[in-house]
Amino acid sequence: MAESTEYDLVVIGGGPAGYAGAIRAGQLGKRVACVEMERAGGTCLNWGCIPTKALLKSAELFQKIKKADTFGLSVKEAGFDFAKVMERSRGVAGQMAKGVEFLFRKNKVDYFVGRAQVAVAGMVEITEGEHKGKFLKTKNILIATGCKMRRIPDLAVDGVRVMTSREALAAKTLPKSIIVVGAGAIGVEFAYFYNAFGSKVTLVEMLPQILPVEDEEVAKTLHRAFEKQGIAVHTGTKCENFRVGKDAVKVNLVKDGKTEEIEAEVVLSAIGVVPNLESVLSAKVKLELERNYVKVDDSYQTSVKGIYAAGDIIGPPWLAHVATYEAVNAVNGLFGHGPAKRVKSFPGCTYCQPQVASTGLTEKAAKEKGLDYKVGKFPFTASGKAVASAEAEGFVKVITDAKSGEIYGAHIIGSEATELIAEYGLAIHLEATAEEIHQTIHAHPTLSEAVMEAAAATLGEAIHI
Amino acid sequence: MAESTEYDLVVIGGGPAGYAGAIRAGQLGKRVACVEMERAGGTCLNWGCIPTKALLKSAELFQKIKKADTFGLSVKEAGFDFAKVMERSRGVAGQMAKGVEFLFRKNKVDYFVGRAQVAVAGMVEITEGEHKGKFLKTKNILIATGCKMRRIPDLAVDGVRVMTSREALAAKTLPKSIIVVGAGAIGVEFAYFYNAFGSKVTLVEMLPQILPVEDEEVAKTLHRAFEKQGIAVHTGTKCENFRVGKDAVKVNLVKDGKTEEIEAEVVLSAIGVVPNLESVLSAKVKLELERNYVKVDDSYQTSVKGIYAAGDIIGPPWLAHVATYEAVNAVNGLFGHGPAKRVKSFPGCTYCQPQVASTGLTEKAAKEKGLDYKVGKFPFTASGKAVASAEAEGFVKVITDAKSGEIYGAHIIGSEATELIAEYGLAIHLEATAEEIHQTIHAHPTLSEAVMEAAAATLGEAIHI
Repeated sequence: MAESTEYDLVVIGGGPAGYAGAIRAGQLGKRVACVEMERAGGTCLNWGCIPTKALLKSAELFQKIKKADTFGLSVKEAGFDFAKVMERSRGVAGQMAKGVEFLFRKNKVDYFVGRAQVAVAGMVEITEGEHKGKFLKTKNILIATGCKMRRIPDLAVDGVRVMTSREALAAKTLPKSIIVVGAGAIGVEFAYFYNAFGSKVTLVEMLPQILPVEDEEVAKTLHRAFEKQGIAVHTGTKCENFRVGKDAVKVNLVKDGKTEEIEAEVVLSAIGVVPNLESVLSAKVKLELERNYVKVDDSYQTSVKGIYAAGDIIGPPWLAHVATYEAVNAVNGLFGHGPAKRVKSFPGCTYCQPQVASTGLTEKAAKEKGLDYKVGKFPFTASGKAVASAEAEGFVKVITDAKSGEIYGAHIIGSEATELIAEYGLAIHLEATAEEIHQTIHAHPTLSEAVMEAAAATLGEAIHI
Repeated sequence: MAESTEYDLVVIGGGPAGYAGAIRAGQLGKRVACVEMERAGGTCLNWGCIPTKALLKSAELFQKIKKADTFGLSVKEAGFDFAKVMERSRGVAGQMAKGVEFLFRKNKVDYFVGRAQVAVAGMVEITEGEHKGKFLKTKNILIATGCKMRRIPDLAVDGVRVMTSREALAAKTLPKSIIVVGAGAIGVEFAYFYNAFGSKVTLVEMLPQILPVEDEEVAKTLHRAFEKQGIAVHTGTKCENFRVGKDAVKVNLVKDGKTEEIEAEVVLSAIGVVPNLESVLSAKVKLELERNYVKVDDSYQTSVKGIYAAGDIIGPPWLAHVATYEAVNAVNGLFGHGPAKRVKSFPGCTYCQPQVASTGLTEKAAKEKGLDYKVGKFPFTASGKAVASAEAEGFVKVITDAKSGEIYGAHIIGSEATELIAEYGLAIHLEATAEEIHQTIHAHPTLSEAVMEAAAATLGEAIHI
C-alpha cells in the first residue's frame, strides 16, 4: 500500500464496534483500515464475552455431571483440570480472533496491529507497534476504543492476589477462595464459575441487589439460587480497607454500619469500566466529552467534523451487541446507506445458571414512570420442556401497556434465558403486543412456550398456570 | 353433580387439543367437562412429546459426558441405568399429567376418565370406565380424540420385538440393535436416543430424505451428522417381509431394485398416525370426513351443528402446539371471544442432536411455487457462542421475498434450534421483513445472533461471514 493512500475510513479499535464498523465499510466498497493495539476482536472476543462463555460451559457441564444420577446416568470420579479449562477458553478466543482477521481480509480491511492516535481530523498516527510512525490519511475516523476495567482505589491489580476479569481469564490455577467485588454481569458470572468448580465464593455488591440493572424479582430469585448453590452473597455492602498479604487478602465488609472481616486467597474486582481515551487523541484534537465519554450526535459524529465514535467509548450500556449496532449504523450513515439509527432497545444477558436476560423496562422503571402497566408471569415449573430437562428454575415476566398490550419490557431467569429473550427483542422492535405473541404458535415442548404464556398471562389467557 | 346438569361444552379427549380447549372454556366461565380415556395430557404428554424429551435429555447429557475432556473435565466410568432413564421419563410424564389435572380443578373443568361417544348432537355418553352409562347433556361438543400410531401391515406390535413409540416409552431394557422404520420426527428422535446409549441403530425411510417435511439442505446435514454418530441411515428404501423370530427380527431393505437383509433385536415402527375415530360417534351421528379425518369449517364446526373438532383428528400437521391452538380458537369462537382463527403458520421441531426446527416454506416449496425468493444462511461455526459451547454444527437458513424481504420460511439445524425458531415464528406471524430482524439488536454472544445474521445475509449485510 502506497503511503499516499487515502482511506475513506480509519477505525481505531478492533473490538465489537471497531471490527464490525470496519467490515461494514468494506462491504460498502470503501477503503478502510482498522488499527487495534492487541488483537482483532477486542476485549469482548479476547478477554470478555467469548472466553468467559467457554469457561461457563465447562462449569455448567461439570455441574450437570455431578447431577448425572438425576438423569439415570452414573459417573465415577468427576474431576477437572483447571489449566485445561482455561486453555480451552483461550483456544476459543484465539479461534474467533482468527475469524475476525479472516473477515478483515475478505472485506479488504487493512488491519494494523498497533496503538493509534487521532493526529488531526483526517489523519491517524500509529504511535506504537511495528507500524509506529505511520500516518494514515483518511476522510473519516471512527473511534471505537472501548473501555477498560475500573480499578478499586488503593488496590493494585497484581494478577495473583488481586485480579480483574482480564487476569482471571489468564490464570492457570483455581483459587481455594475468592471475593468477587461487584455483582454486575461480570462479577455474577465469575462467582458462578468459581463456585461451580468448588472455590469458596463471596460475592459483594454495594447496591441493594445483585445485577442492579435487572428486575428486582429476577435479582432476588438469582440471589436465592446463588445462596442455594453455596455462594455467600452480600448486597448493600461496601468493601473497605483491603489488606493484601502473601497468601490471602483481607477486607472489611460494611453493611448497615456493621463491619465483618473476611479473607480469601484472591479478590476479583468487577466494579465496572472506564473509557479508553488516554493517548487516543493528540493535543491538537479536542472532542466534547460527557461524563468522560465521547459525545456524539445522532449520526455518531463527535464535536469534530469527520471524527465519529461508537461503542463503549460513547458511554453505557457497555454491551458488545450495542457497540456493534452503533458502529455499523455510524458507517451506514457515513456512507449514505440509510440514516444512522440510534439504539432504542437492547437485550442484556448474564450467563450464570440460571441464566438472566432482559430487554426494555423493569417493573420498577414502569412504576417510576407512572405507566399504566400489566405484568404477566409464567414459571418454568409449568413448562413441560423445562421439567423434562430438569431445569425448571425461574420464570418469564413481561410488562405491557395496560391498554394497548404493547410490550414495555421482558425479564427471564432460567435455562436458555439468553436465547429466549431474542423473541421479545423483536417484539419490542416491532412494537408488537402481548396478544400478537400469544397468537403466534410456539412449538411444543419448548421453553419458548413460556415466552408466549407470560404474554398470554397479561391477558388472563395463559393455559398452563 | 346432578344428572340434570347441562354443560356448555363437553370435550372428548384430554390431549393438547382437548385439555387446552376445556381449560379455555373454564377460563371463559363456561360449564365444561372433559372425558379422557387414559390420562389427562393425552398422547403428547403421557406417551409422546414430554416423556421423549426427558429421554433425549438423558441421552444428550450422556453424550456430553463422554466428551467431557473437550471441556477440561474428566470422568471415570460414565455409565447409565436404562431402567432409571426410562423411569425418570415416566416420572416427568406423571408430574405433567398431574399438572393438567390441577388445571382442570383450578378452571372448574369436570374431568371424567372413560371412553366417550357422541350419542347425538347435544349428548355425550360415557361408554367405558367407572362412569360407564353416564350421559352428559351439553350445548356443544368438541371432538379432540387425536391420532394413534399407524401400524405396519402384517406386522403385529408385540411390545418386545416390535414396538411403536408407545411401547418403546414403557420398555425397561435397551435393545442391542434396533431398526427404526420411518424417519419423521419420532423415528429420528428414537434413532438418536438409542444410538446415544450404544444400540446399533438402522434408520430406514421410504422417501428420498430423512425428515421429509424439512428443507433438503437441513435433512442432508442431519443425515451426515447421524452417519457420523454411527447410525446406519437408509433413505429411498422400503422395508419388506418382516420376519419376527424369537430373539430378532429380519427384514429386507429394498432400494433401487436391490435387496439387502438386515437383522436387529427390535423393530420400532414410526410410520405416522391414523385418526382415533373408532367408537367416538354413535351410529346416529354421521360427520363429513376428508381422507378419514373430521372435516371442519373455519369455526372448527363439523358438518353437524354443535359438534366441533380440533387437533390431530381434523388432520395434519399432527403437532401438539397446532392442536392446542385450534382447540383454544374453536372455544374462543364458540363462546364469542373473537372469531375462531385458523392456523396459518406453525413451527415444527425435532429434538435429536443437532436439533432441527423450521417454520414456513422450504426452499423447494418456494421454488415450486415459482416465488422470487432470496436465501440467507449463517453457519454456527461463525457464532462465538456456538464455538464457545463446542456446539458449532449446523446453520440457520432463511428464505425471504426477493422484493419485500418478508420472511417466507426459516430452517435451523443446530444447538437449541427448537428454541431459536420462535423468533422467526413471531416474524412470520407479524409479516416482518429480514431488514426488521437485522435491525433488532440481538444479545452477544448468543445463538440467536445467527437468526439475525441469516436475515442480514439475505441483504448482503451479515457481518460475521
